[in-house]
Amino acid sequence: MSEVRIELIATGDELLNGSVVDTNSPWLMGQLEGLGLPVWRKTMVRDDRPVLVETLRAAASRSDVIVVSGGLGPTSDDVTAECAAEAAQVGLRFDDGVYAALEARMRARGLSVSPNNRRQAMVPEGAQVIPNRHGTAPMFELRIQQARFFFLPGVPREYLALAAEELLPRLSGLASAAPQRRTRLLRCYGLAESALDQKLAQLPGLQSGLSIAYRTTLPENHAKLTATGPDAESVLSVAVAEARRRLGLDCFAEDGATFSEAVGQALLRKGASLALAESLTAGRAAALLAETPGSSRYLLGGVVVYSETLKRELLGVPAELLAEHGAVSLQVAESMATQARGRLRSDYAVACTGLAGPEGDGRHPVGTVMTALATPSGVTSRRHLFTGDRERIREYAAYATLDALRRSLLTS
Amino acid sequence: MSEVRIELIATGDELLNGSVVDTNSPWLMGQLEGLGLPVWRKTMVRDDRPVLVETLRAAASRSDVIVVSGGLGPTSDDVTAECAAEAAQVGLRFDDGVYAALEARMRARGLSVSPNNRRQAMVPEGAQVIPNRHGTAPMFELRIQQARFFFLPGVPREYLALAAEELLPRLSGLASAAPQRRTRLLRCYGLAESALDQKLAQLPGLQSGLSIAYRTTLPENHAKLTATGPDAESVLSVAVAEARRRLGLDCFAEDGATFSEAVGQALLRKGASLALAESLTAGRAAALLAETPGSSRYLLGGVVVYSETLKRELLGVPAELLAEHGAVSLQVAESMATQARGRLRSDYAVACTGLAGPEGDGRHPVGTVMTALATPSGVTSRRHLFTGDRERIREYAAYATLDALRRSLLTS
Repeated sequence: MSEVRIELIATGDELLNGSVVDTNSPWLMGQLEGLGLPVWRKTMVRDDRPVLVETLRAAASRSDVIVVSGGLGPTSDDVTAECAAEAAQVGLRFDDGVYAALEARMRARGLSVSPNNRRQAMVPEGAQVIPNRHGTAPMFELRIQQARFFFLPGVPREYLALAAEELLPRLSGLASAAPQRRTRLLRCYGLAESALDQKLAQLPGLQSGLSIAYRTTLPENHAKLTATGPDAESVLSVAVAEARRRLGLDCFAEDGATFSEAVGQALLRKGASLALAESLTAGRAAALLAETPGSSRYLLGGVVVYSETLKRELLGVPAELLAEHGAVSLQVAESMATQARGRLRSDYAVACTGLAGPEGDGRHPVGTVMTALATPSGVTSRRHLFTGDRERIREYAAYATLDALRRSLLTS
Repeated sequence: MSEVRIELIATGDELLNGSVVDTNSPWLMGQLEGLGLPVWRKTMVRDDRPVLVETLRAAASRSDVIVVSGGLGPTSDDVTAECAAEAAQVGLRFDDGVYAALEARMRARGLSVSPNNRRQAMVPEGAQVIPNRHGTAPMFELRIQQARFFFLPGVPREYLALAAEELLPRLSGLASAAPQRRTRLLRCYGLAESALDQKLAQLPGLQSGLSIAYRTTLPENHAKLTATGPDAESVLSVAVAEARRRLGLDCFAEDGATFSEAVGQALLRKGASLALAESLTAGRAAALLAETPGSSRYLLGGVVVYSETLKRELLGVPAELLAEHGAVSLQVAESMATQARGRLRSDYAVACTGLAGPEGDGRHPVGTVMTALATPSGVTSRRHLFTGDRERIREYAAYATLDALRRSLLTS
């Protein structure tokens, strides 16, 4: 166990009635672990005053640093600041700075400040306020008994930004005594987790402080390589080089880089433009690509041809092809890609058509997806069968559509 | 608070180092909530003997039912059964039934039993073993002090199956003594959380067992109304009726119904078809609508016109309009909607154009979004300014684009 005992507390009825999955904490835990500051305990409680006060006090008596999230909003069920004051046996004070920032923020958006917003400016006496540029709830640090508490809003966008910008820099100093530790995340697509595990078996360094953890965020699979010890840096770089050699194009990026960026990079490298023709994904592949800032340098646009009429009239897929092979066919997928490339005048075009379900077409099982890629030198297509529900099939289809392009660009 | 105090404990290093997000517990919490058995606390700890023993004892002293998951596997870091025995101050015994089932299971898969597997057959004295048809780890019930503990494996497939088949049936009986509880989730769009809170202030029933909790899943805001007591049903229905009267069209759906479904329902009610013309959202609005099964009944398709060339050539937005007003203008948004409605031959069409950032165009701030709606009786448009990062601006824009349509359909 680390010398610094760090624990997390998250409050909110929504965390305990199953309506929200807490993804903030795992992110912070991973960051802290990377700094050599492992979290030893996490507690979730409801927005219940006596329970929260008791929980804060118990944490103060057993940990050095406690990160508390949630319950700092404007509504009457937001009780964290009050409970923090009670646990620290201090009063609440109105913070002019917090209120001024809140007012300015609301005014900029054309909103008026409600009486409830005044509640958000109440912080415990003795708390050090940390300005929140990302929302109206304050962040503050407070000592309760001998422990340092950091209070953050629970809204993921604000939590993640404040944790990265304000919390981690304040805690990273505590880790100076921790062992050397280096990590690299390898992001893969197109490999099952068990196949990934097999490919990385007996990686060099596994006898000298290297460990591998797997994580599936479908349709991606990630392998996290961690090296610990005085040679962490070199052990890790040797292992990563060998892992990438074995994984080849199945590994599309490292660390924070996204699949959308990887596809964009491959297009940029060729100076090529792209158009899309989507049926079952209905714009999802284009929207995925457009997540990356600057995607307008390669993404011209696309068509969503959900109806058969639009496949014919907007895109120009021949009626005979649709009649003969059906909308879910390699022939139609290829025609969609070819027509999109011609009509939208792009260097490359991708297309997909298929059955997201739950209803089938009587010809193909639900999950059947045909993808096609039109390039300056021709058109190729591929048949896939994805399992799962409608959302999962559409997500897999969007990835498969773009991944065919990525692999083609990187090997041509 | 319920009469039966239920808490959850999950053990495992992977839960505290950020490599796994626990989705088991939210599922169980939702099931228990539905049975009128709300969970009041959840704790996660590492596979650390003294910490786990202390955590089990603390839970025994404050709760009636505790569900513990994880740490029942075959490896040396699986210490839950030992810790349970220590907390209950009993020994461990070898369970022949568990071992026989484990051996049969391994043999059926052509695997041989390793010495480690014998560990899995060790359970605390006095524990009642519940056979696990889904894996090798045992499930067992054990009394520690006055509390009933249920121990389950943490592997999601096994956890979910055992919780559904074995745990919930054993707990559902406890709910008959619990107070009546009825909940309704009101899903809103277009109101800040503080405004929502104000609108629902002094709702009838707040003096007779009604409570309101707020949750923001941007761009949606949800209010969860919970009524408790013998009149829960009628208190809730009066409160919901009044809440909906006050919220009007800002409340788009109740309980599990999604925004995508609400827009689809409004289209179906009119028997109307839709086409979309998207710029900054790049297909996200169409993909959002297509989340709903059967959306092909009203969604014909759309165009993603990311480049200015495609706005002109694919959609037919006049070059003069683009030159005079720029791509981010109400005029261009209106033309996009009108042209989409004409070219894609739909009853209604929506369009959006704007700046998702991070780079601006020198004319408008990042976050500026123009949406337009073309109907059989004309075209309307609206200017928005959204804050946040690129992803958030695009998500808000997709909602705003479809919401204009929803409101129009419901009021015409």
